[in-house]
Amino acid sequence: MRHLLSVADLGAAGIAELLEVSDSFVEVSERAIPKVPALRGKTVVSLFYEDSTRTRLSFETAARRLSADVMNFSVSGSSVAKGESLRDTVQTIDAMGVDAVVVRHSSAGVPWQVANWVGCSVVNAGDGWHEHPTQALLDCYTVRRARGSLEGLRVAIVGDVKHSRVARSNVLAFSTMGAEVTLVAPPTLLPPSLEGWPVVAVSHDIDDVLPKADVVYLLRLQAERQSEALLPSLREYTACYGLTRRRADLLADGALVMHPGPMNRGVEIAAEVADLPLSVITRQVANGVAVRMAVLFLLLGSAPAA
Amino acid sequence: MRHLLSVADLGAAGIAELLEVSDSFVEVSERAIPKVPALRGKTVVSLFYEDSTRTRLSFETAARRLSADVMNFSVSGSSVAKGESLRDTVQTIDAMGVDAVVVRHSSAGVPWQVANWVGCSVVNAGDGWHEHPTQALLDCYTVRRARGSLEGLRVAIVGDVKHSRVARSNVLAFSTMGAEVTLVAPPTLLPPSLEGWPVVAVSHDIDDVLPKADVVYLLRLQAERQSEALLPSLREYTACYGLTRRRADLLADGALVMHPGPMNRGVEIAAEVADLPLSVITRQVANGVAVRMAVLFLLLGSAPAA
Amino acid sequence: MRHLLSVADLGAAGIAELLEVSDSFVEVSERAIPKVPALRGKTVVSLFYEDSTRTRLSFETAARRLSADVMNFSVSGSSVAKGESLRDTVQTIDAMGVDAVVVRHSSAGVPWQVANWVGCSVVNAGDGWHEHPTQALLDCYTVRRARGSLEGLRVAIVGDVKHSRVARSNVLAFSTMGAEVTLVAPPTLLPPSLEGWPVVAVSHDIDDVLPKADVVYLLRLQAERQSEALLPSLREYTACYGLTRRRADLLADGALVMHPGPMNRGVEIAAEVADLPLSVITRQVANGVAVRMAVLFLLLGSAPAA
Repeated sequence: MRHLLSVADLGAAGIAELLEVSDSFVEVSERAIPKVPALRGKTVVSLFYEDSTRTRLSFETAARRLSADVMNFSVSGSSVAKGESLRDTVQTIDAMGVDAVVVRHSSAGVPWQVANWVGCSVVNAGDGWHEHPTQALLDCYTVRRARGSLEGLRVAIVGDVKHSRVARSNVLAFSTMGAEVTLVAPPTLLPPSLEGWPVVAVSHDIDDVLPKADVVYLLRLQAERQSEALLPSLREYTACYGLTRRRADLLADGALVMHPGPMNRGVEIAAEVADLPLSVITRQVANGVAVRMAVLFLLLGSAPAA
Repeated sequence: MRHLLSVADLGAAGIAELLEVSDSFVEVSERAIPKVPALRGKTVVSLFYEDSTRTRLSFETAARRLSADVMNFSVSGSSVAKGESLRDTVQTIDAMGVDAVVVRHSSAGVPWQVANWVGCSVVNAGDGWHEHPTQALLDCYTVRRARGSLEGLRVAIVGDVKHSRVARSNVLAFSTMGAEVTLVAPPTLLPPSLEGWPVVAVSHDIDDVLPKADVVYLLRLQAERQSEALLPSLREYTACYGLTRRRADLLADGALVMHPGPMNRGVEIAAEVADLPLSVITRQVANGVAVRMAVLFLLLGSAPAA
Repeated sequence: MRHLLSVADLGAAGIAELLEVSDSFVEVSERAIPKVPALRGKTVVSLFYEDSTRTRLSFETAARRLSADVMNFSVSGSSVAKGESLRDTVQTIDAMGVDAVVVRHSSAGVPWQVANWVGCSVVNAGDGWHEHPTQALLDCYTVRRARGSLEGLRVAIVGDVKHSRVARSNVLAFSTMGAEVTLVAPPTLLPPSLEGWPVVAVSHDIDDVLPKADVVYLLRLQAERQSEALLPSLREYTACYGLTRRRADLLADGALVMHPGPMNRGVEIAAEVADLPLSVITRQVANGVAVRMAVLFLLLGSAPAA
């Protein structure tokens, strides 16, 4: 494996291997000195054409724990502002001798283009509404760790599926690992076609779905969907699709509540629900570092972690 | 000690211990390779909701000299811009497994809130007009190093006391260590009440205070105080309260001139006075790194520095 | 050598030594772990008052490969915005105990001022339209590596010479090393006087120059030159001075095409020409890291690289 562009690159065996390697990096992260020399002398550059301190920090922490050097290419204040093409920018970075580029871009497909242009490894950290594979992998890891396996679990993904790279990558990853995914959203927030989305059902009735779900995965709702007339109001969205306190009581024992962050407390999730014991949102963040260590290690490591 | 939020957390014994530890880090800073492995594998995140390259660089240098990893959470370009609550932001950072968060925020009290929300250590790097404890500690260190002790010294703090977290923290720290603090300011730049400010006097006449002072501590004057009608003009401020060349001659032999920076040369301090031998402003900066090493080491170190 | 401010500081012997040291760092860069401990414990600060991710990343990569610590002083969000003078800013940074400051500034001469104010080493990373010595050194290195020597080579520097610090530094460096430099530009993009520019000729006819050139060095054309009425149009510039596909065929076998980046493909260089085998633009970037390692090592290193 040279790049991680899509969850589809991995297949079930690849995901399973990655989750196992992640186990060992969770163990590393719990040490007094949570650091291994596995990627000493390697350089990882984060190239974010969209803001995301959360994902960037997670990758950066992961790279540092593997003893790699980390550099940020901040797009504001860069050659990009001087009209340099994306291709020249990434080939320049590549020519400096970096080992991996972690790319986020608002256009779908950019990480694939970048991978064609460079000699180093490329990790997709989110491209447009398309994919966000490391998010899906850390979510699989979090579910597997809490429930032992994803096989046969019923997962409800709730909210703005249409504009969500998280939704697409997670549907692929969850279903690849044997879970049955149901999408729950108003028609305006569903993609025009679900061809290529391996889901078992689509529902507009969250109250019907929750009692049967093992995992409720809430998507972030962006306020601008309202101004785009895709929603009558945020309040009505919450009334119909928000995970309110009352609805959390519909969940079975052992069900998990997940969210990729950043949350809009009071919109897609009630403030208090995010802090209930069934919420594993903080564990998603913690696992994210270990899973990204596993990704970087599998792409760049040549020897086993010490 | 898990957090450093206020000078008051330390007491006289705590400050004395910290200044002694700082001595050893001054020695480290003077080595050919000014680095110790004390915090290897630890991660320090700077979370600055207000601009301050000066303080951020000082903490970053301190952390690196202790072999810690350092990450910046830049607030522009972050989840904050996407409407995430401060609490969710800091809990996300905490969940990634960091060891300390260095927080600056424009609202008083934020570092205390953060400390309630996270498992890691919190250092207050300035909250509103409230406190800036590491500044006060480095100032104590600088005076102690120049004069042997703070006991019985007469310190004049001059300028915009009302809007200054530096003033508040330094009054606390200096008086705790036995100095006698006099505030020198126009009435509009004094707090409405001095309850809880352990000062021996308030003066509106700097010419009267200077000949008796062992330390003159000048506060930065922000130009916007003029537009707020707290000052007739910057020029009049300088005439009444600025440390001009003439006034510097009123100072006793061995008196020290201090400033937390950044200076407005020509306003609160004459350009040339900042460069006189009695000015220890550059030494404050140099000592700041060692004192912040001591703070991070006392919070995060488990073994003595090698 | 304490600072690198101008190519003129080095002389032919100094440049030759630096290119030889660069050879050894190219070798380091090709190792599995491209890192030496030569500058362990040293701190390099990049202080960029003008945007340039490209040059900043190159210096940062160089410093990290030498095991130095690297810090960025970002000018937006700094004391500069609070009105602090350049002098106080750099003296503050110096007082923290850094070993080198890499400065870029829009005003010619600033690195010399900085060098007067600080105790640490200063590297000029570009000052106004004046100098950009490390660019010239990496370009010399690239030519020497491709052609064995610069002695007697005919170099054509094409484009906006007037506003280019790259042009000035490269004319100095190339001619110092024995090359014969011809400037090719419209009169409006030439300096008012060429006194102090050691060139053998000036031409307005690129078609005449190309067949005799060993090296064609294209300068970046900034679109604003058009609005300043220095150019009739970008299209006409390309017609008269651009290295089009047709013109590339005029070049002799073994001739090199160079560009400091970022390129305006389709303006000063045809998109496809930048990717021909005779283009060494990517090699310039790769060599830049090794040459900057050599610069930092010669300024800060006290022992040979291991």
